[in-house]
Amino acid sequence: MSAPRVGVIGGGQLARMMQPVAINLGIQLRVLCAKPDDSAAQVIPDSVIGSHSDINAVLAFAKDCDVITFDHEHVPSEVLSALIDAGHNVQPNPSALQFAQDKLMMRAALTEAGIACPKWAQISSAQQLEDFALAVGWPLVLKSAKGGYDGKGVWLVEAQAQALEVISDIHAHGQEVLAEECVPFVRELAAQVARSPHGQCVAYPVVQSTQTDGICHEVIAPCPEFSEDRAVAAQEMALRIAALLDVTGMLAVELFDTGTELLVNELAMRPHNSGHWSMDGAVTSQFENHLRAVLDLPLGSPAQVTPFAVMVNLLGQDLDNLHSAFRHVMARDPGVKVHLYGKAVKKGRKIGHVNVVGDNLGDLTQRAWHAADYLTGVIDE
Amino acid sequence: MSAPRVGVIGGGQLARMMQPVAINLGIQLRVLCAKPDDSAAQVIPDSVIGSHSDINAVLAFAKDCDVITFDHEHVPSEVLSALIDAGHNVQPNPSALQFAQDKLMMRAALTEAGIACPKWAQISSAQQLEDFALAVGWPLVLKSAKGGYDGKGVWLVEAQAQALEVISDIHAHGQEVLAEECVPFVRELAAQVARSPHGQCVAYPVVQSTQTDGICHEVIAPCPEFSEDRAVAAQEMALRIAALLDVTGMLAVELFDTGTELLVNELAMRPHNSGHWSMDGAVTSQFENHLRAVLDLPLGSPAQVTPFAVMVNLLGQDLDNLHSAFRHVMARDPGVKVHLYGKAVKKGRKIGHVNVVGDNLGDLTQRAWHAADYLTGVIDE
Repeated sequence: MSAPRVGVIGGGQLARMMQPVAINLGIQLRVLCAKPDDSAAQVIPDSVIGSHSDINAVLAFAKDCDVITFDHEHVPSEVLSALIDAGHNVQPNPSALQFAQDKLMMRAALTEAGIACPKWAQISSAQQLEDFALAVGWPLVLKSAKGGYDGKGVWLVEAQAQALEVISDIHAHGQEVLAEECVPFVRELAAQVARSPHGQCVAYPVVQSTQTDGICHEVIAPCPEFSEDRAVAAQEMALRIAALLDVTGMLAVELFDTGTELLVNELAMRPHNSGHWSMDGAVTSQFENHLRAVLDLPLGSPAQVTPFAVMVNLLGQDLDNLHSAFRHVMARDPGVKVHLYGKAVKKGRKIGHVNVVGDNLGDLTQRAWHAADYLTGVIDE
Repeated sequence: MSAPRVGVIGGGQLARMMQPVAINLGIQLRVLCAKPDDSAAQVIPDSVIGSHSDINAVLAFAKDCDVITFDHEHVPSEVLSALIDAGHNVQPNPSALQFAQDKLMMRAALTEAGIACPKWAQISSAQQLEDFALAVGWPLVLKSAKGGYDGKGVWLVEAQAQALEVISDIHAHGQEVLAEECVPFVRELAAQVARSPHGQCVAYPVVQSTQTDGICHEVIAPCPEFSEDRAVAAQEMALRIAALLDVTGMLAVELFDTGTELLVNELAMRPHNSGHWSMDGAVTSQFENHLRAVLDLPLGSPAQVTPFAVMVNLLGQDLDNLHSAFRHVMARDPGVKVHLYGKAVKKGRKIGHVNVVGDNLGDLTQRAWHAADYLTGVIDE
């Protein structure tokens, strides 16, 4: 084994954040980016410009890579098949990845295995919708099975007429419709595991994730006021899903906590926003363990280095130059860790995050939010 | 202030290790490398090939950089002057850097300021040598004032005839001769500080450094069995030197501990091998604080995240493919942090290091040495 080369399809911030650990480990990264100024292309010398849906571009990109992995779930199945047919080592394998690409397949597989999910149904007709609504009540949630389009993918609908409109729209985009009950959760959690092709797994501490307008905004590791028993149950659920679906690399299982039950919300088979805290708060970050896992190397310890870590996302606001706020943020708090993605600021876009780690959760939370709010211009003192 | 661009002259592992923190902070690095496969050129897209002693190459490189800093001390003074004359922001400034480039100037400045050094003298004649040897005894140490040539720069000499031969050789290479007493130290320490142009300083914990054949091999942070009073004295000494010489960026003060006294051995005005532990063991690594300091940004906390950190250098041995040892090292110890520099293995060459951090120093030391010995092929189980 000489210095291994990992090919990452997609040039977003997840590929970008693999580069620091690749540098440390002497692992070579090659990244397939849509544009020369993509977040990852800015920091990875071996950046190839091309589309993840162009079979020839992806095959040319994959040449001489020891393994191909992903920054996102959007690579079409025919491109994945072409990679496999050409003999490439793809991790996670398309047979696993399909469960992250198709929410109906995911719901069916988990339900068959007895893993708790919100009540769900595939909806093809008005009658099916009426029956499902009768069973779970209004409002309910509609999803396009294979992910979003035009920036939408999840709809909360209040009544039959509104729901039928959304369903037509989803069908008009060539997708199938997944309906789910609107779970009355008390909070959202995420359980992350890394799993390698030879079957080794590690489980990260279960975290609490808080959303703003459907976008992850704050993560606390470990989830506060959460019993050891329930934390272990969440980790076991994630480990079980990873083995069931033969996931390799990082798996994030987003969970609804109803107070008594843990229900699977979404799956992601890649490093995930809910694990960014690990860059400064764990012995081995999710990005390092993703690379180790897809290379089938032994995994690193997911243990926290301090009792708590708090991550707050930088969601684009009015301030379009984050660097102008560096001086204040760094002077006020010598312990805050700032992470920027090299992306242009747009309202609500994830453009970076801050981590603060230590003992006192209240203090960490206050510090992380202050830094994030100042960096994005929400506050100016 | 938009995303700042830092130009680093020299493409070795120190420039390479600035890239992970630059990525996190969204700081753009440009590096001047001698060869396209230099350690830093492998991981920094904006790598320029050129010589650090070529005035035109360096001036072209420096264009559009917000600040110019260094991977090494070898940039000639005429090149530094040209940068300053062209209006570039150079940190550390040449007026500080000269004390890291010329050991006679350094000794004179520290001695004048009353900072403890080994007994020393400039030697131009046999009579001066005889007088100095009479004062300090044999053996003594000879150094070429402006650093090494042909891989040599420091000679331990036993007697007059041998010493005169070395002195002629140094003079033949156009350099002046610094003679120093051979200090009977009980151990070697290093005190690192970061200092910014506006004068803010932070002091890292004082570390113990152990050399093998004159090359740093192991560093323990903080220095064990070292009283708080003496640690503070070492930190104060480093802070005083930084202010005295107007150093910006990282300063490493290598010290001899005689058991009762602390004597300055060498200075380095850049990130230094004695601070590599900070990549995994401190809130803010020396590489992040170097970038923050040269950009005149507020400095990060140098506090340790665990009670102890142990770093062991990977010095090239017989095993020429470090990656072949990954599987064993990672499987045996999920907590070890491996850092490779992308350099070809040569006997005795620094090709990487490992860090292990935690509570139990004996355990950490054993684990760090095992990983390093296995990665370099010294042991095979």
